[in-house]
Amino acid sequence: MNDSSKKTALVVSAHSADFVWRAGGAIALHALQGYAMHIVCLSFGERGESAKLWRKGEMTEEKVKAARREEALAAAEILGASVEFFDIGDYPMRADKDTLFRLADVMRRVQPEFVLSHSLKDPYNYDHPLAIHLTQEARIIAQAEGYKPGEKIVAAPPVYSFEPHQPEQCEWCPDVLLDITEVWDRKYAAIQCMAGQEHLWEYYTRVALQRGVQAKRNVGITSSKNIVYAEGYQSIFPRVTENLA
Amino acid sequence: MNDSSKKTALVVSAHSADFVWRAGGAIALHALQGYAMHIVCLSFGERGESAKLWRKGEMTEEKVKAARREEALAAAEILGASVEFFDIGDYPMRADKDTLFRLADVMRRVQPEFVLSHSLKDPYNYDHPLAIHLTQEARIIAQAEGYKPGEKIVAAPPVYSFEPHQPEQCEWCPDVLLDITEVWDRKYAAIQCMAGQEHLWEYYTRVALQRGVQAKRNVGITSSKNIVYAEGYQSIFPRVTENLA
Amino acid sequence: MNDSSKKTALVVSAHSADFVWRAGGAIALHALQGYAMHIVCLSFGERGESAKLWRKGEMTEEKVKAARREEALAAAEILGASVEFFDIGDYPMRADKDTLFRLADVMRRVQPEFVLSHSLKDPYNYDHPLAIHLTQEARIIAQAEGYKPGEKIVAAPPVYSFEPHQPEQCEWCPDVLLDITEVWDRKYAAIQCMAGQEHLWEYYTRVALQRGVQAKRNVGITSSKNIVYAEGYQSIFPRVTENLA
Amino acid sequence: MNDSSKKTALVVSAHSADFVWRAGGAIALHALQGYAMHIVCLSFGERGESAKLWRKGEMTEEKVKAARREEALAAAEILGASVEFFDIGDYPMRADKDTLFRLADVMRRVQPEFVLSHSLKDPYNYDHPLAIHLTQEARIIAQAEGYKPGEKIVAAPPVYSFEPHQPEQCEWCPDVLLDITEVWDRKYAAIQCMAGQEHLWEYYTRVALQRGVQAKRNVGITSSKNIVYAEGYQSIFPRVTENLA
Amino acid sequence: MNDSSKKTALVVSAHSADFVWRAGGAIALHALQGYAMHIVCLSFGERGESAKLWRKGEMTEEKVKAARREEALAAAEILGASVEFFDIGDYPMRADKDTLFRLADVMRRVQPEFVLSHSLKDPYNYDHPLAIHLTQEARIIAQAEGYKPGEKIVAAPPVYSFEPHQPEQCEWCPDVLLDITEVWDRKYAAIQCMAGQEHLWEYYTRVALQRGVQAKRNVGITSSKNIVYAEGYQSIFPRVTENLA
Amino acid sequence: MNDSSKKTALVVSAHSADFVWRAGGAIALHALQGYAMHIVCLSFGERGESAKLWRKGEMTEEKVKAARREEALAAAEILGASVEFFDIGDYPMRADKDTLFRLADVMRRVQPEFVLSHSLKDPYNYDHPLAIHLTQEARIIAQAEGYKPGEKIVAAPPVYSFEPHQPEQCEWCPDVLLDITEVWDRKYAAIQCMAGQEHLWEYYTRVALQRGVQAKRNVGITSSKNIVYAEGYQSIFPRVTENLA
Repeated sequence: MNDSSKKTALVVSAHSADFVWRAGGAIALHALQGYAMHIVCLSFGERGESAKLWRKGEMTEEKVKAARREEALAAAEILGASVEFFDIGDYPMRADKDTLFRLADVMRRVQPEFVLSHSLKDPYNYDHPLAIHLTQEARIIAQAEGYKPGEKIVAAPPVYSFEPHQPEQCEWCPDVLLDITEVWDRKYAAIQCMAGQEHLWEYYTRVALQRGVQAKRNVGITSSKNIVYAEGYQSIFPRVTENLA
Repeated sequence: MNDSSKKTALVVSAHSADFVWRAGGAIALHALQGYAMHIVCLSFGERGESAKLWRKGEMTEEKVKAARREEALAAAEILGASVEFFDIGDYPMRADKDTLFRLADVMRRVQPEFVLSHSLKDPYNYDHPLAIHLTQEARIIAQAEGYKPGEKIVAAPPVYSFEPHQPEQCEWCPDVLLDITEVWDRKYAAIQCMAGQEHLWEYYTRVALQRGVQAKRNVGITSSKNIVYAEGYQSIFPRVTENLA
Repeated sequence: MNDSSKKTALVVSAHSADFVWRAGGAIALHALQGYAMHIVCLSFGERGESAKLWRKGEMTEEKVKAARREEALAAAEILGASVEFFDIGDYPMRADKDTLFRLADVMRRVQPEFVLSHSLKDPYNYDHPLAIHLTQEARIIAQAEGYKPGEKIVAAPPVYSFEPHQPEQCEWCPDVLLDITEVWDRKYAAIQCMAGQEHLWEYYTRVALQRGVQAKRNVGITSSKNIVYAEGYQSIFPRVTENLA
Repeated sequence: MNDSSKKTALVVSAHSADFVWRAGGAIALHALQGYAMHIVCLSFGERGESAKLWRKGEMTEEKVKAARREEALAAAEILGASVEFFDIGDYPMRADKDTLFRLADVMRRVQPEFVLSHSLKDPYNYDHPLAIHLTQEARIIAQAEGYKPGEKIVAAPPVYSFEPHQPEQCEWCPDVLLDITEVWDRKYAAIQCMAGQEHLWEYYTRVALQRGVQAKRNVGITSSKNIVYAEGYQSIFPRVTENLA
Repeated sequence: MNDSSKKTALVVSAHSADFVWRAGGAIALHALQGYAMHIVCLSFGERGESAKLWRKGEMTEEKVKAARREEALAAAEILGASVEFFDIGDYPMRADKDTLFRLADVMRRVQPEFVLSHSLKDPYNYDHPLAIHLTQEARIIAQAEGYKPGEKIVAAPPVYSFEPHQPEQCEWCPDVLLDITEVWDRKYAAIQCMAGQEHLWEYYTRVALQRGVQAKRNVGITSSKNIVYAEGYQSIFPRVTENLA
Repeated sequence: MNDSSKKTALVVSAHSADFVWRAGGAIALHALQGYAMHIVCLSFGERGESAKLWRKGEMTEEKVKAARREEALAAAEILGASVEFFDIGDYPMRADKDTLFRLADVMRRVQPEFVLSHSLKDPYNYDHPLAIHLTQEARIIAQAEGYKPGEKIVAAPPVYSFEPHQPEQCEWCPDVLLDITEVWDRKYAAIQCMAGQEHLWEYYTRVALQRGVQAKRNVGITSSKNIVYAEGYQSIFPRVTENLA
């Protein structure tokens, strides 16, 4: 992600599998378009999202984390992204100032064109809102001239919330539908790295198909675009443009 | 607007000046980009938005309408758009099925890439929400195979609400900021056609400047884009895209 | 209400008893303060809010309306207000342009300092939202120079929604608590005119007591104001002031 | 549906296929539980939701309506429900007082334990909100003693919005997940009657599977309930109960 | 609360009297139905809700806490519930990870069928939202296999917000009305234990009467249910059911 | 601010310039009306809002803070207010219990008639919501008899959110428009003290002009009030009054 000639983007994932289910298509698609995609996993989801591993017995938190790390690395490789692990723990996730500055520093280093993270609300998962708020505040700090003065500040990259597990309950509404048909195979291959959460493979396949149908409808059935799979995103900030079509 | 080789867009304006204050920049900008821009004025705003004319004395509704028509035609010409007048009356505005079908027919004829109209709520002006709802329903009808079967239906053009006079009170929030710096002179020239509402000239100049500062902030102060004037828009539908930057 | 030296206010009530339960305190209080209070009852509530009368047997719509008119006149007299009846029917209530203009004409005649009507939503009663929307649109027309040019237009009187029967379900939230302690006796006397709806007497007494406790809390328990009864109102428009205390 | 010893429920469907996609599971399930389920189709969806039929050529509105009637009758029979057609037209749908009273009369006749209809908002389809508002107002009229005095009024049956095509865009959020696993075969058989909209078969199968996973999650993964298919509903009114589990 | 043959439920109360005013009916009713009801009081409300005690003079925080404990124990006994005190302080309330785990452990021990706590917002009281968020996060942790692996996790008990003091200001809206007529005497007896807050006795009696009238209305006035007193609740999660009546 | 014969008010500003842009008119106006206006600056905005100073080079945080303090003192003097600096740091701002109690103590000392602070949400600036939440919680503590028992508690002063930089994005909506025409010169003089943020001078002049036009419109164009400049405020609590005009 240090290849300065490349455009970049950043994904902040509360647990080590979130980036796959929720943003795997965006990651693969932009990688294909030449972006250096970088992922920060705040935790491994070792406590809250590794039920299958725990049920194996003879488990320790370290073993679970190692297994989850392997899965995440494999998935990131398939998607064409780099990944780093903050390992700040989950269930509950807590972020102190050091974590905040660490993430701000990642942003300064990466200089992302856009940023992806979780929904602002999630009554089923308190780590998810924490991750997006941490991301938002880190972005603000990375924009401040007075934080580590002299460093190159970040501009104002758009931030998007990717899709939570139960969207309506999270008050999440997609205002962007990203056509990921071209990279679906890659996303599904990455999904299959998540051996511990096999029950979610078909769930997120169906999510992609539903968003695909909706995307098709929102361009019009007479459109020549052949959209089959899509991902939904919700913008946090207004976009600035010179064309409304 | 029948030049089939051109891209097109449609603006539906409740009163004959709304398109100038609220979407003049978008009209001029897309005209410059080669779009055939077409405007429907549902009324002349003869009752509700022509106070200065009425105060002149010796006025009749016909005289007011004629004066307003002239202003609108002059403004549209400056912006580079065609315009037609439905003349359905204002304060109150009411639309029957004939008006609905008339607007649906315009949509089928124009085949717009995008559509602009009012905000969904406006406690200060009940004609404005009526205009956008009429627009939305006309678009739905124009999409239906069973309406005048055999005609070419419209696809799913995005619809945007342009900025109302008191945005917060109308629960309007811009998710798009359109850079109109390049065409500001044209918009301001069009604004000056509205002789009867001179008190609004500076108001909408300031609106454009404020949205310009906000657009600048939303691309980041380090951006090389030199945005001075902008217009805000709120999307009704999710946009479909292949790039999130 | 034609005493031009007096300040005035207007209450628009969907059914002939609504003004009593929901705004009786405001009417009596401002009457006491010297306002000429005028009430428009759009209907008598003959179908939807006269169950007890209908159960008497031997009833006709005319008899119900006559009985309801008597109750409303008696209540208005106690509150110190004038009242007129539009008699446009209820369950369902519908308002055509003539009704709209009739109400606009009342506004021009009354020139109210403020206007009270129903909540914008009410899933239990579709006549109520209709009444406030009619009121809002009539106010807009009464403000237009082009409606009956030459007449004195109305200024911009604040509009308030009074309390519906089940406030949370109507998405109604009071931003004003009106201390009606001084006129409670009068309001309760007016309430007792509503012989057909005795089951509501204690309900609205308790509403007044609850809003009184809340008002007391919102001025602070250390305040010297001895508030016992209050009415809640929700503003539609921002208020303009020179003091924030 | 006149078997007075049976419990009953009512479904109001804007177009003749909506009840299948959106409430087919609820209909079949309650029929199985002994409810007399009755469906009102306000229109056949002849203009707006019969694209495939229109594209066959040699079509007239009457032919389309006849074909759609057959499909709806076949689906209702599979689900175990009676159905009647108001035939008020679609795209645009409009309802006058006669239609309102006609639906109120159906409610008085059916005396439903609960009522199902569309979401309150739908920017993609203006007939859907009209249908629920018509339903809500008809229910209010059917409750009024003064409407056709002497008839048996309806109580206060709960009203639910069933799932629209793009739930987040319609501001629809399910607060009830109905387990339809037991009757899924029947729903899918009814879905297959909709020959003209085959592109939706798999879409609504996936909807049922997704809601099934969510229902499973909302009872807890340790629950013994084996939920595979579900339908989402949004309540309009609070429910009254004696148990919170 | 360890009688494993009994169903159980949990109430999390920010201050030691909240459970009485807000959920006393639900506690008594479910106790009567055979539930083992358990209450966690996070604080005694010693600073913020004991004004009368402090005004006695010669007071210390310890004395206030002791008095409040006695009142809460007496009230819980009348309602038929067990109670434990976390004593984490109030005004401001703060919860660290230890408190979070302590509450998660209570949940694992109790295995509740449902959970009651405060509203998500309360501009008058910052301890209340903290309590519900703590409750929600504790429930999430208690559901996680990776927290104290090997222990029995909790399922997905529904969570309800009970009624705050000024419901509209807290954006709280009841979607459930619980009929507590049968246990009202018990609730009022418990209320009377709160000697320090006598000004609230009649306030919450009126709340129960108002919710009772509303519950009656929501089942329909023709219903045979004789509801006089009720409590309102707002669901956090969708409920899963097999019947919509 | 200790002149006990004077009415007082309190402004809580996250960074040392916020009070000028956002509430300078209210401060000057109430000072003119005889209020002792007191300002708490939680930080100097040294990191996040001093870009111009940092770009000068040879800067340290201490130098920036000193420069910002001078500017704030000068502005406060022009506005006629006292000011104190908590110096808790910005970007990120964090407040512990000591800061909370310090602010509660200020409130007890000042005994404000009203309190001004930031909007509840601001996706561009996380220090702003923190400031208003801190203010709200400090007010609650200052009202509690059990906090420093024996001290004079504060009553229930209204709290207002002043205008954020991008109001719609912050979900801020003004329900009060304060006419500051009389003190505009003073506000603009104070604005000019902010040498480091000259790019904002004209931005906030335009904000004041826009709010002025809106205020004029909300009193009605026929009003004799000559409003040119205004500030918008959003109330947190309902106001208690005896007059609705």
